[in-house]
Amino acid sequence: MKKTALIMAGGRGERFWPKSRKSLPKQFLSLTEDGRTMIQLTVERIRPMIAMEDIFISTNRGYRELVLEQLPELPPENILCEPVGRNTAPCIGLGAVHMAEKYEDALMMVLPSDHLIKYNQMFLNALKDGCKIAEQGENLVTIGITPDYPETGYGYIKFRPDEAQGNAYAVDRFVEKPDIRTAKEYLETEEYLWNSGMFIWKVSTILQNIHKFLPNLYEGLHTIRASIGTDKQEMTLEKVFPELESVSIDYGIMEKAQNIYILPGVFGWDDVGSWLAVERIQKSNESGNVVKGNIITIHSKNNIIQGGKKLIAAVGLEDLIIVDTEDATLICDKGSAPDIKMVLDNLKICNREEYL
Amino acid sequence: MKKTALIMAGGRGERFWPKSRKSLPKQFLSLTEDGRTMIQLTVERIRPMIAMEDIFISTNRGYRELVLEQLPELPPENILCEPVGRNTAPCIGLGAVHMAEKYEDALMMVLPSDHLIKYNQMFLNALKDGCKIAEQGENLVTIGITPDYPETGYGYIKFRPDEAQGNAYAVDRFVEKPDIRTAKEYLETEEYLWNSGMFIWKVSTILQNIHKFLPNLYEGLHTIRASIGTDKQEMTLEKVFPELESVSIDYGIMEKAQNIYILPGVFGWDDVGSWLAVERIQKSNESGNVVKGNIITIHSKNNIIQGGKKLIAAVGLEDLIIVDTEDATLICDKGSAPDIKMVLDNLKICNREEYL
Repeated sequence: MKKTALIMAGGRGERFWPKSRKSLPKQFLSLTEDGRTMIQLTVERIRPMIAMEDIFISTNRGYRELVLEQLPELPPENILCEPVGRNTAPCIGLGAVHMAEKYEDALMMVLPSDHLIKYNQMFLNALKDGCKIAEQGENLVTIGITPDYPETGYGYIKFRPDEAQGNAYAVDRFVEKPDIRTAKEYLETEEYLWNSGMFIWKVSTILQNIHKFLPNLYEGLHTIRASIGTDKQEMTLEKVFPELESVSIDYGIMEKAQNIYILPGVFGWDDVGSWLAVERIQKSNESGNVVKGNIITIHSKNNIIQGGKKLIAAVGLEDLIIVDTEDATLICDKGSAPDIKMVLDNLKICNREEYL
Repeated sequence: MKKTALIMAGGRGERFWPKSRKSLPKQFLSLTEDGRTMIQLTVERIRPMIAMEDIFISTNRGYRELVLEQLPELPPENILCEPVGRNTAPCIGLGAVHMAEKYEDALMMVLPSDHLIKYNQMFLNALKDGCKIAEQGENLVTIGITPDYPETGYGYIKFRPDEAQGNAYAVDRFVEKPDIRTAKEYLETEEYLWNSGMFIWKVSTILQNIHKFLPNLYEGLHTIRASIGTDKQEMTLEKVFPELESVSIDYGIMEKAQNIYILPGVFGWDDVGSWLAVERIQKSNESGNVVKGNIITIHSKNNIIQGGKKLIAAVGLEDLIIVDTEDATLICDKGSAPDIKMVLDNLKICNREEYL
């Protein structure tokens, strides 16, 4: 069966401020050393398996130019621009109807655009395994990540270790971000995996599930589908999409559907959730500093320093995150990384849009 | 007797990097909140006592334009440009022969251009007291600062508490920067004051002393003096000055001369020796942060943050010095302030002149 992918690239990640901005969110940034952006890496990763013409990017209208620029080989009609963000269920539904229109039915992989994967061949193998299961009957497949520690920032998926199908397991239930105590319990049971937000299913299967669990969304998508390829396509999307219910695929479908399987992913996944991730994905020098740009460090260790042309001199520093951009500089204690959000809040309150 | 002042402004202070540069040393920076530069404040401070035409600025040739710009009311001929730096004895000697040429004899106050004084009226009173003593006989007067703590970065002056003349005391000897143990001993004896580098004497007295203790310098100054006002003035300075012995007034004269008196200065003196001084001279906010520029602080305390237009966001920081300029940013732990010199050393070794 034809293999297609929907890469979701509408996010506005604020945790990489000041490098990430409303006008340049994380998926369009290069955070690794090789210079390619997150979305470029995402596309390259699946190219051995999926033709360029079968890769769809769903994004916010404002990012269309960025996608075109960073992925010049992508057919422009494969960029699906949401007039407004409506969470993942409408986003995935929109992708599904475009694929259905193109191929009637196909295998559809849903992938975030801003994660990193270390072992690409293992990742492709997992996708291949997932495709096999998704092709059978009406299975919904998700890829789960074996937890290393009790993270409270991710959703978890409980599986049934005794109900295997190939490398996959039957899913018992999707659970939202836990508190730390619950996360520790999950870890101990060895029956929970992290929800990576990656899915594989047939286009027909996900549309059936949308029909069953989100009938209003299905109806809207049906109207949109009818307009694809006509001169009313854009106008219809403009009119119908904003009225769709804003709901996540997890809450709207996965928490309710049957026949869900989870594949444990062991391919060096990293969601690059904050500046702290840079330590994992870029090499540090002998003092434990991870530096990029025009940097002098004196008696400084274990800092993350990301600059550009401007000289940054770090003297006697330890465990700091320093990020310099054209118009804003962040200096943040590693332990305070979650508080970067408060800077953004402050800027919003003060209407300082130019920095957001 | 006519009162004149020589303000020494040839210094290249590196401790305020990256704001201070070879092309813009500390005396030309504004480090206080009122926006005036150190040299502007120095001139304004003595204006109630000395006419503008009697204030001379000795500086490096490269800073002539800066002086003209920052002190537009100063007669341009009062800027004495040293072709090369030759320490304080030749600098003061050059000032003295210019004053001698203008007034035959006069009272000459020698003042650094990069110190701050809190209580100006008390400072002027001290200068007045100093003038009285300097006018009598052949007295050399210096102003000493009562030490608060055993500073090892200043020279000290030992005085004789039982040999007073008005508010001043006879000087026993000048001593160079002590180690910490010696500095503590000095503090305990209560017979040592900090050497502030401020002097008062008659032009004739200092020239006599130069004649006696530095005869070669005297000879060179004599040649220079003969050229003042002629068309050979500049050429002569260019030729003679670089050949003068590079020696400090302390070592060359004060450690050998007789009739030295010291006036204890109690006027809130601050030599603004490093970025740490900014905490003393600018107001801190309720979190103990001293900020200037476009700054957002979140959970941060006791930092010195000096920026400009660019946004600086400080998150979870404590006891740091952050200084942002057009082409360089310094981030330094307060305890590591002396290591800023190592950044400069690094830049010198790498021939990165543009940052020096």
